Amino acid sequence: MAKANPEPRLTKKAYDARVADVRADLVHMQVQLKNAPFPVLVVVAGVGAAGKGDVVNVLNAWLDPRGVETFAFQEPTDEERERPAMWRFWRCLPPHGRIAIYAGGWHTEALREDPRSPRDLTEFDTALRRIARFEDQLTADGVLIVKIWLQLTKDDQRARLHELEADERTAWRITAEDWKSHRDYDRLSRLADTMRRATQRPGAPWHVINAADPRARNLEVADKILTRFRAHYRTHKTVAPIAKPRRTAPLRAAGLRRLLALPLDQHVGSGGYEEKRDKWLGKLNRIVRTANQARRSIVWVFEGWDAAGKGGAIRRLTDAIDARDSRVIPISKPTDEEKAHHYLWRFWRHVPRAGMATIYDRSWYGRVLVERLEGFAREVEWRRAFSEMNEFERELVEHGVIVIKFWLHISKEEQLRRFRNREDTDYKRHKINDEDWRNRRKWAAYETAVGDMIALTQTRFAPWHLIPANNKRHARLEIIKTSCQMIEAALAAKK
Amino acid sequence: MAKANPEPRLTKKAYDARVADVRADLVHMQVQLKNAPFPVLVVVAGVGAAGKGDVVNVLNAWLDPRGVETFAFQEPTDEERERPAMWRFWRCLPPHGRIAIYAGGWHTEALREDPRSPRDLTEFDTALRRIARFEDQLTADGVLIVKIWLQLTKDDQRARLHELEADERTAWRITAEDWKSHRDYDRLSRLADTMRRATQRPGAPWHVINAADPRARNLEVADKILTRFRAHYRTHKTVAPIAKPRRTAPLRAAGLRRLLALPLDQHVGSGGYEEKRDKWLGKLNRIVRTANQARRSIVWVFEGWDAAGKGGAIRRLTDAIDARDSRVIPISKPTDEEKAHHYLWRFWRHVPRAGMATIYDRSWYGRVLVERLEGFAREVEWRRAFSEMNEFERELVEHGVIVIKFWLHISKEEQLRRFRNREDTDYKRHKINDEDWRNRRKWAAYETAVGDMIALTQTRFAPWHLIPANNKRHARLEIIKTSCQMIEAALAAKK
Repeated sequence: MAKANPEPRLTKKAYDARVADVRADLVHMQVQLKNAPFPVLVVVAGVGAAGKGDVVNVLNAWLDPRGVETFAFQEPTDEERERPAMWRFWRCLPPHGRIAIYAGGWHTEALREDPRSPRDLTEFDTALRRIARFEDQLTADGVLIVKIWLQLTKDDQRARLHELEADERTAWRITAEDWKSHRDYDRLSRLADTMRRATQRPGAPWHVINAADPRARNLEVADKILTRFRAHYRTHKTVAPIAKPRRTAPLRAAGLRRLLALPLDQHVGSGGYEEKRDKWLGKLNRIVRTANQARRSIVWVFEGWDAAGKGGAIRRLTDAIDARDSRVIPISKPTDEEKAHHYLWRFWRHVPRAGMATIYDRSWYGRVLVERLEGFAREVEWRRAFSEMNEFERELVEHGVIVIKFWLHISKEEQLRRFRNREDTDYKRHKINDEDWRNRRKWAAYETAVGDMIALTQTRFAPWHLIPANNKRHARLEIIKTSCQMIEAALAAKK
Repeated sequence: MAKANPEPRLTKKAYDARVADVRADLVHMQVQLKNAPFPVLVVVAGVGAAGKGDVVNVLNAWLDPRGVETFAFQEPTDEERERPAMWRFWRCLPPHGRIAIYAGGWHTEALREDPRSPRDLTEFDTALRRIARFEDQLTADGVLIVKIWLQLTKDDQRARLHELEADERTAWRITAEDWKSHRDYDRLSRLADTMRRATQRPGAPWHVINAADPRARNLEVADKILTRFRAHYRTHKTVAPIAKPRRTAPLRAAGLRRLLALPLDQHVGSGGYEEKRDKWLGKLNRIVRTANQARRSIVWVFEGWDAAGKGGAIRRLTDAIDARDSRVIPISKPTDEEKAHHYLWRFWRHVPRAGMATIYDRSWYGRVLVERLEGFAREVEWRRAFSEMNEFERELVEHGVIVIKFWLHISKEEQLRRFRNREDTDYKRHKINDEDWRNRRKWAAYETAVGDMIALTQTRFAPWHLIPANNKRHARLEIIKTSCQMIEAALAAKK
């Protein structure tokens, strides 16, 4: 075979001379990165025989191995298959200050399906949009994503396959599959073009690198990483302090209006309440078991005013569900591992396996409530969170998870009554502290934030249920009934 | 059928009257526990039809669901099967301040195998010893373990099975398997007796509870938990400050002697070094691939003086291993999630899947080095750590993991030379800080601690390799050669 690549290759001598500098630069990069408030993701993808594995290994050899981790994605494990598609990638995200190298990863997985039928193509499209959103969320959060596409012309690919086959040390790597892909080069190229176009994001562009000369390829990959890092580090090396939040003005007044219009004067007396409740709990028990058998997971989100009765309502639910199939995740301050990741990471990590139920006692919505009002997130962050949370829930629902969101609403007077009662009752005193009183003084601001939340995260697939909760019995019945109906509808829709 | 249980049952009225108090007590317990420096593990096991699932659900109903999590163990997932047997239980340990309820768990898993042949019985025995050590480690660390065994006589079991079958709400729970177990009652009872005797630990005794009357059973379970908690809380509610470490005296002088006797004057010149190194790296590459194909994992442990060359040696190893099959875990300060668990938890969580290699850059041995000398662990803690670490490694090796431990040894003068060189070299300056100089001033104490470590954690299955490292080339060759030999021997032994 004639050499397909007519350009002169980089000599070993010229290569070695440059490698020393590149290595020093890469390690210097890692030293800077170590205390930076962001991680670096390097994706290595490309056509067959372009040397993805070699590039991954070279990068690992050049970098200080203590600050880098490499992930290769084979077949998903059963724990991964039982969760939304992106879960396996979320769980492999590095914390701030570290580098992750993905040999393949999400793009390669999308391509591996090799869509042919129209139905496949629709799924391919969905996968690409999911990837684009995933990367958008990460880059918005300050993550540096460097995506490398190793390219070979068809002739170069053929030459490279022959070259690898001729060498006994590498011959074992070439399979019939590789030659099949080679014959299908043009179609696969178009597919890859489509993939790259769909996932070409402002903060995460593709770097297409000619891989015909392995030495030049290695240097160019390192060069791209260094260039991108330097530019990113300049603008992201420190986190500016968050400005004191301004007066809370509604973004979408319709939400606040909906909230204020909620009637709170329902009364359910104690007479007959327990029978009614138990009837519905029995129903809930059966429908949750049916969902479990159908391997459908359920995610409950409980939000509401302090003392609105979230805890009590959750207890009624858990009473009716087999404890072995459910978890309650109480959300308070993030741990330091959580703080070193995207804010949604700490919710992703608890996404249930197939058939299991997770009850979030407070949730990701803290981003647009307490974090918005207390200035724990900057305005640009909590503003984009509305759509990020919608996307998160969309991914859950697309995977078949049933998402049920409750806002428990009480009047300001009712809250005061309950706070006082907690202070006066010995065994309830632990449930009330200064922070509760502080939050209460910001009632109006919270009302606005809640209004925006229910307006901007009201989706067809994960609607809000506003529960009037001045009367606890009423609230609990509503929650149990609504849960039954939502699960029933979801099971019926996907049969 | 005649009622098998002649004792009068607890009436609903008497039961309800007591339940209110029990619930209040349990929630009060959770309030105290929340800020306590230990978690609570409740194991619910017992004979068939004794109501394990009911008890788990009742406890969940009585407890505040936000502080408790329930784990049921079905078939291990593939991620679990690929790791040592206890990994799936380590990963489910709650952090301080929380309760975990295990529906079955490690004991039930051991019983489920139903050993019959002598070979099975040996494995059963191994499993029981593993469980006993697991619980010993946890209780030594302050964990409260409450183990409930729900007991029924054969007659009671038969009556209960009939009762469940007669009720349409529970009939579906009774299978042919249950009746089969019932017919085999006597043998299974003896087996369970053996299990309980073998896992009856001072800090984690079994509470055998008569389950004939479900109401009385529920109350007694709660009562056992409360009693055990109260006693435990009194003695464990706060952690006494750690006394300033005394002068470091050797526990086992043989280790120090072995360390001091290590010749440090080997010299490997640069001539021919690279060829030799590359020959061995080639060999390492092949043998690691063989291990990978045989689904054998490798765990490397690198310990050594500051500036002894751990990082450089690790880089040579990773050069020879496919980055997709290996991880380097640099050990520094534990995260807050790690601090809220047993100190081995943060190492267990990184135990590799089948065929993967993990390189720990520093390791669990920090417990008997820096933590011993700086007073981060109390004397009783680091003293028992020697055998705990041996047990940890034994479990890895029993599962087929190849454990390779290196201590990189340099002279005090050589360290000084390297420290100065780091300070004088621009791109190395980040590698040296005040702490390194502080540690250096404690050289003699560290020497003693290292001596104890190599004497007390030298095992047949995971021996220490002391590497003279004054000459880096010599050290690296030794490390690569030793690694090859260890892997080769391990693969040969288990074929």
